[in-house]
Amino acid sequence: MWSSQTQATFENLRLELRRGSLILAVLGALRIERYGYTLRKTLEDAGMPVDEGTLYPLLRRLEAQGLLESEWREEDKRKKRFYRLSPMGTDVFARLMEEWLQIGQAVRDLHKEP
Amino acid sequence: MWSSQTQATFENLRLELRRGSLILAVLGALRIERYGYTLRKTLEDAGMPVDEGTLYPLLRRLEAQGLLESEWREEDKRKKRFYRLSPMGTDVFARLMEEWLQIGQAVRDLHKEP
Repeated sequence: MWSSQTQATFENLRLELRRGSLILAVLGALRIERYGYTLRKTLEDAGMPVDEGTLYPLLRRLEAQGLLESEWREEDKRKKRFYRLSPMGTDVFARLMEEWLQIGQAVRDLHKEP
Repeated sequence: MWSSQTQATFENLRLELRRGSLILAVLGALRIERYGYTLRKTLEDAGMPVDEGTLYPLLRRLEAQGLLESEWREEDKRKKRFYRLSPMGTDVFARLMEEWLQIGQAVRDLHKEP
């Protein structure tokens, strides 16, 4: 059983760990066009749930950075904002995945030794 | 060829991606006692180089959070500060590794589909 302080420390580290990977997960999911709800559902199904208060600001930021494109369209009689990777986002995503695989290898190596 | 702005966006995301994993790498490397230089060397050899200006503040922070213990000792006629995981750090590290493996699976799943 952890003290509440240990628990808080863990939660803090857990969030730091998730933050960078969440961006990668979002970019990966948006190689296909999706709107907010289906994106959240996709992330949740993959084991990475994210609340709206985190996701929507992140989408706006990634769009402002030129990694995403979005478009309002009507579907089932409701206007929805659809997001997808921009060409630049596709490039950046590919490079980040390489980076991520390399980091993964490093962490695994350090975990195996000595 | 990327514009300097795309390059800056990528670097920024790359750092976010590394930040969380770096903590995991440091904790993993400190299951064995190490001092600053050998720790940096270990991280670099594993493909995760980190500069002193990042590493030393991180070590102080992780020690303040109770995850690391440290001790000054003389070795080769020089005083060195040796770090290692505390018992609590060992626990937290194990939980973070589980979390990290789960995140990894999620990112891989999102990368595969469809």
